Amino acid sequence: MSASGSPRPHTTWLKSLSPRWPSASPNLSMISASSSFELLGRNELLQASESSGIDASVPYPEGTTIDWHREEAAEREWKRTLHSQRGLRGALAPIADSSKMWLVIVLTGVGIGVAGAWLDVLVRWLGDLREGRCAYGFFYNQVACCSGLDPGEVCTEWKTWSEYLHVSSILGQSLLQAWVYIALAVIFAGSAAVLVITYAPYAFHTGIPEIKAILRGYVFDAFLSPWTLFIKALGLALAVASGLSLGKEGPLVHVSCCMAFLLSRIFKVKQNESQKRKLLAAAAAAGVSVAFGSPLGGVLFGLEELDTFAFSNENDVMWRGFVTSVIAAVTLQYMDPFGTSKLVLFEVSGTVSGTWRAFELIPWMLLAVVGGVVGSFLIRLNAAAAVYRRNSSIYDWPVLEVVSFAALTGAICYLVVFLRAQTSELVANLFQECDVTKGDYHGLCNPTALWHNVFLLILTAVVKVGLTAWTFGMMIPAGIFLPTIAIGACFGRAVGLLTQGLQRAYPSAVIFSSCPPDATIRCISPGFYAVVGAAAMLGGVTRMTVSLVVIMFELTGALSHVLPIMISVVVSKWVADALGRDGIYTVWIAMRRYPWLPPDEYRDQGQTAAQIVKPASDIVVLRDGSPPTLGELLAFVRRYHFHGFPVVAGDEDVLVGFVVREKLRIYLERLVTEDVDGALTEAQRWTFIKAAAAADNELVNLAPLLDEAVLQLRKDVPLQLVVNMFQKMNLRHVLFSQEGKLTGLVTKTDIVWLLTAHSPHTGQLAGDTIDQ
Amino acid sequence: MSASGSPRPHTTWLKSLSPRWPSASPNLSMISASSSFELLGRNELLQASESSGIDASVPYPEGTTIDWHREEAAEREWKRTLHSQRGLRGALAPIADSSKMWLVIVLTGVGIGVAGAWLDVLVRWLGDLREGRCAYGFFYNQVACCSGLDPGEVCTEWKTWSEYLHVSSILGQSLLQAWVYIALAVIFAGSAAVLVITYAPYAFHTGIPEIKAILRGYVFDAFLSPWTLFIKALGLALAVASGLSLGKEGPLVHVSCCMAFLLSRIFKVKQNESQKRKLLAAAAAAGVSVAFGSPLGGVLFGLEELDTFAFSNENDVMWRGFVTSVIAAVTLQYMDPFGTSKLVLFEVSGTVSGTWRAFELIPWMLLAVVGGVVGSFLIRLNAAAAVYRRNSSIYDWPVLEVVSFAALTGAICYLVVFLRAQTSELVANLFQECDVTKGDYHGLCNPTALWHNVFLLILTAVVKVGLTAWTFGMMIPAGIFLPTIAIGACFGRAVGLLTQGLQRAYPSAVIFSSCPPDATIRCISPGFYAVVGAAAMLGGVTRMTVSLVVIMFELTGALSHVLPIMISVVVSKWVADALGRDGIYTVWIAMRRYPWLPPDEYRDQGQTAAQIVKPASDIVVLRDGSPPTLGELLAFVRRYHFHGFPVVAGDEDVLVGFVVREKLRIYLERLVTEDVDGALTEAQRWTFIKAAAAADNELVNLAPLLDEAVLQLRKDVPLQLVVNMFQKMNLRHVLFSQEGKLTGLVTKTDIVWLLTAHSPHTGQLAGDTIDQ
Repeated sequence: MSASGSPRPHTTWLKSLSPRWPSASPNLSMISASSSFELLGRNELLQASESSGIDASVPYPEGTTIDWHREEAAEREWKRTLHSQRGLRGALAPIADSSKMWLVIVLTGVGIGVAGAWLDVLVRWLGDLREGRCAYGFFYNQVACCSGLDPGEVCTEWKTWSEYLHVSSILGQSLLQAWVYIALAVIFAGSAAVLVITYAPYAFHTGIPEIKAILRGYVFDAFLSPWTLFIKALGLALAVASGLSLGKEGPLVHVSCCMAFLLSRIFKVKQNESQKRKLLAAAAAAGVSVAFGSPLGGVLFGLEELDTFAFSNENDVMWRGFVTSVIAAVTLQYMDPFGTSKLVLFEVSGTVSGTWRAFELIPWMLLAVVGGVVGSFLIRLNAAAAVYRRNSSIYDWPVLEVVSFAALTGAICYLVVFLRAQTSELVANLFQECDVTKGDYHGLCNPTALWHNVFLLILTAVVKVGLTAWTFGMMIPAGIFLPTIAIGACFGRAVGLLTQGLQRAYPSAVIFSSCPPDATIRCISPGFYAVVGAAAMLGGVTRMTVSLVVIMFELTGALSHVLPIMISVVVSKWVADALGRDGIYTVWIAMRRYPWLPPDEYRDQGQTAAQIVKPASDIVVLRDGSPPTLGELLAFVRRYHFHGFPVVAGDEDVLVGFVVREKLRIYLERLVTEDVDGALTEAQRWTFIKAAAAADNELVNLAPLLDEAVLQLRKDVPLQLVVNMFQKMNLRHVLFSQEGKLTGLVTKTDIVWLLTAHSPHTGQLAGDTIDQ
Repeated sequence: MSASGSPRPHTTWLKSLSPRWPSASPNLSMISASSSFELLGRNELLQASESSGIDASVPYPEGTTIDWHREEAAEREWKRTLHSQRGLRGALAPIADSSKMWLVIVLTGVGIGVAGAWLDVLVRWLGDLREGRCAYGFFYNQVACCSGLDPGEVCTEWKTWSEYLHVSSILGQSLLQAWVYIALAVIFAGSAAVLVITYAPYAFHTGIPEIKAILRGYVFDAFLSPWTLFIKALGLALAVASGLSLGKEGPLVHVSCCMAFLLSRIFKVKQNESQKRKLLAAAAAAGVSVAFGSPLGGVLFGLEELDTFAFSNENDVMWRGFVTSVIAAVTLQYMDPFGTSKLVLFEVSGTVSGTWRAFELIPWMLLAVVGGVVGSFLIRLNAAAAVYRRNSSIYDWPVLEVVSFAALTGAICYLVVFLRAQTSELVANLFQECDVTKGDYHGLCNPTALWHNVFLLILTAVVKVGLTAWTFGMMIPAGIFLPTIAIGACFGRAVGLLTQGLQRAYPSAVIFSSCPPDATIRCISPGFYAVVGAAAMLGGVTRMTVSLVVIMFELTGALSHVLPIMISVVVSKWVADALGRDGIYTVWIAMRRYPWLPPDEYRDQGQTAAQIVKPASDIVVLRDGSPPTLGELLAFVRRYHFHGFPVVAGDEDVLVGFVVREKLRIYLERLVTEDVDGALTEAQRWTFIKAAAAADNELVNLAPLLDEAVLQLRKDVPLQLVVNMFQKMNLRHVLFSQEGKLTGLVTKTDIVWLLTAHSPHTGQLAGDTIDQ
């Protein structure tokens, strides 16, 4: 395990990054584990190791994959220990244990709800600051500054910077406004980048690929540290306010997971790796719930995208996710950051009660195809940008990159009217139907400016594709959901405007015959087209289906139009899948080469497991009694840095079990170095076989360390079955045997390699992560 | 396998039932399989069996469980055969194969959409017929008869029976109306029962427990026959129209599955058992989609309740379910049976735009608790009723039972005003807010009749609980969703009315301070309380969570109130789980003892697999070369009716593989009886070991029949791991070995027994099904 593959050394800003990146430092991380052993005599030590579940106390080095079954066994052991306590303690201890877990779940929900609300407030204020300030108080945003006015009254309290500084010349005004707009963008984005790089390098990017890998067993605790939590939340607010083309949705999931991890440490919830992952799954659901105001979408996102079904019996995990999601959403609604007392963020008004006509399926299909094609293109562009950055000198100057790109983004966005406001404001207006009483967003509702609007919308979408492809991967917290929604909404609104224009120009055409004859009644709702376009684009980029549709509902409230949204998601996913198999998160996982198994069905072409099995001759095997003394055994264990060793015995090398290296090493070190009565020396002989130990009193009995219950397969099993077992059972490795003899070994890494070898992206950024 | 456990013989009406109930008739069902062998010489026969995938052609007898991995292997083999064809055929055959599958999916969606729409029309008409008829046409229902009127105009075309027959005395009118109402109920229900019992005994009940078992591998093809399809659809319309306390939702899922099965036979889609189940899962989603007008709810119902995640990689199955659901919903909307051109069945008007107040959580919590308690009680009552029926003489007179109970239901319902109309009409009105422009449903909106209304609503709910508990299990198609919704809606509306009354009586109380001061603005919406009550009751009865919430949204359109609905479902499930672990479908599965593994997490108390392993000494094992001749081997195979035999060899009984009995039997019978050149006789010796066959030319090589790729475990593995493997991998059996020697066997039945032994309901109706 080495941080290899990095073509050039990190310089300047990245210097602080290197030591924080996960590396195998077992000696360090073992200290706490080994110090939990009491100083006992030889037999007492054996006793203690047998009863206290030595399995549980061996932590995993960062960058490895947990052994799910070892963790489940430890959890069982722990539950049993709790129950077996005498009297009232035996009854209360399990309740206290599960109450602590629920307390963490509830507090995570509340915490992420509060954090999400404050983030919204902070972003709103920072974003507005780029345009001007409130005359009577610096800390008011535009809406708060202008609240309490009667309808129609003009807000004079909110002043643009040129008004506030009394600049009168028009040129001066323009220059000042543009300068403040861009300068603040650069300052916000730059601060975010400096914070991330200096204090928490893992706080960059969306975090969802890593969460997916962690939930499936990847060990990456540094990714969930309190510093990451704090820097990601703060950096996210700065990054969003800077006007870069990014969203807060994905990073909020990361923040939520960090919060659950921190809380579980504060309340000393038993740190079992499998239980921890179940808790993180619930936290991730809460993150989505707050990000989109979509409690149900959060649960489904957890199920579909994070694939939480795979690692546990679903009811349990779904249930906790459900509760956390609800609590988070209630908290958000109670905090009410937007003062609307509604969870629906981008309400689609006007269309909800309307019906849709069959001919509208034609433009919607068009949008779905556009969503699939552009979504797929965006993924490729983003991957290409990431690879280019990685291999060019830009990689060594991350803050400079962020600062320059923020300036560029600011300059471009200041010129295009739809890009100047915050993305969420743009989306909200694109989803809104035209309504004379509500005013016109930058002339969008002006029917005479049809072509001008269509051009502007498509220009906005195209610019945003380019900006997003580069932004998503820079050294700042950045989500891809909102930019994707914005791109799709622009295309959708453009198509909607065109369809509406066509219908208005030719109201008597056959195709429009289902429209009401009264021209004053709206037949086509361009706002809803924007929703369809956004759904299709999200489908193309993320390849989600059910959870995406639910999120779109909860985001817009357009429940009556469930069918068009579903159809467009179906078609867009179809098109995008034909153009490239993987969604954006899967591509990033592949590029970083996380040990994550795609859940897709794998079909072999008649191969058997023999195809991928590492033959027994290539495996470092521990022969019972073969390095004859404890001292030599310790040397052996120290020499080989594998997760563990298969143990064989007898003349015929019959497989007797599997021993985990760390467990053995710690145990041996205690035995050899801290032996109290001096009876044990390095020259002592040993055995893993109970019967042999019983027969020969001279042998040190290592049998309690041996895992005899190993899963064994034969080499003739179909490859598909092996892959399926790894996917469904979350295995770490499987031993192969034939008639009792060890014939080989397959690890999760082999399976990951098998399933991802086809992808052109595999390992393109692998230098950033560690090799397995 | 015998239809044992039935305490008394079936008489009269049930006579036709017995022969249709699944029984093991391998000789019959094998004919088609064996006739697919060509008449070949010995070596050619071996050749043919090796290449044509003999696995695929051995069907399972009804009542057994499929071997998922054998089926997956056959599917792989089939795909490979298709791809390996030469030239254009090799390219087109796989496409044609998958197009056929998609054609079936699309047609199932369209079919169930049409069927659902026609069912609605039929039920509406039959139901209205109980009250009167249209003056100008017998086949118009009340709405169609009165369509085209101006608002406010009175419909004179629809005549009650007494008006139509010109009965003038009030007593005569009442008697006539009541008599027709009850008589038609008896006729409809009786016809449904006679149809079911005579033509398709499996068409009774909801069908969801059976579908759940089938999807997890139970073989029960008769349950999906065309007769069942037709009778269930027709009988369902009659049963619903008869006014019995039942719904059409569950049975529609069954109808949809039958339709998919029929279509897959018509289009000759390859009948692989695992593929068939994936198709059925998609069809089930379409059924729910049509039943509730809830395309998304359908997909989620499939995922959550039918547990389709468990048997395959989710994306594949989810995707097909998604497509089928959408197509079914589009078809239903196109057919537009209610003339509303909306999918939302019970629209909640008035509340959608309103906000809710924190104090309302108190009555909603109350409703959630009531839902949990009453839902749990309904399950127990229903199970008790089913067991009582089974053990009393009522069981022998199913039609009489249905007819009498229909008469009783009719008489009771005629007396209580809310029960007289169809249940769906009652629910629609309970969900509706009071609105002066829309008229008052039986005085429900009269504020002076508060106590009268509350009393009536609670009476209705209590009566419905009793009626439903008995009805769900009679010999007619019957779903439990709609009655449950109605019960919950009654409680909900009652609580809503009380809360509203309280607020109106004490508008200045502290607790109501968040209500608008203007008394003309509605503060409390009793219609939405009915929705909460319905969701809570459904949660208590079915124990669904996510899919239930989605269905409630799509059913009512109340998206803005997602949180109250989610909270009430959470609390109601909590309460109900505390009172009884299983939902209604699980209870029925347990009562009928279907081989269905509950997906719940199983935790052992430190036991290992040894606890449940059937030891090697108790297993019928095939020793290689032990019955020395083919004739004796055939006799051996004919004697033991197990699914298959572990094969051992050598002096040490080393496990070499597993052979499926049917496969071996068919093969041996062809070899021995239809040998063409006479070279093979019953006296021939045989072996399962390739090397032995190669060494000795005299031995008949049976190695191609042997499955060497058997999953082997050690007895020391934790019990939890074994259970988990059965749940996740859908295994049929697992062999246990130690150092190459067979030590035991565990089958799915053992695991089902282990997981269901705790349930008081297990096997209470098992006489109705066959023993494993």
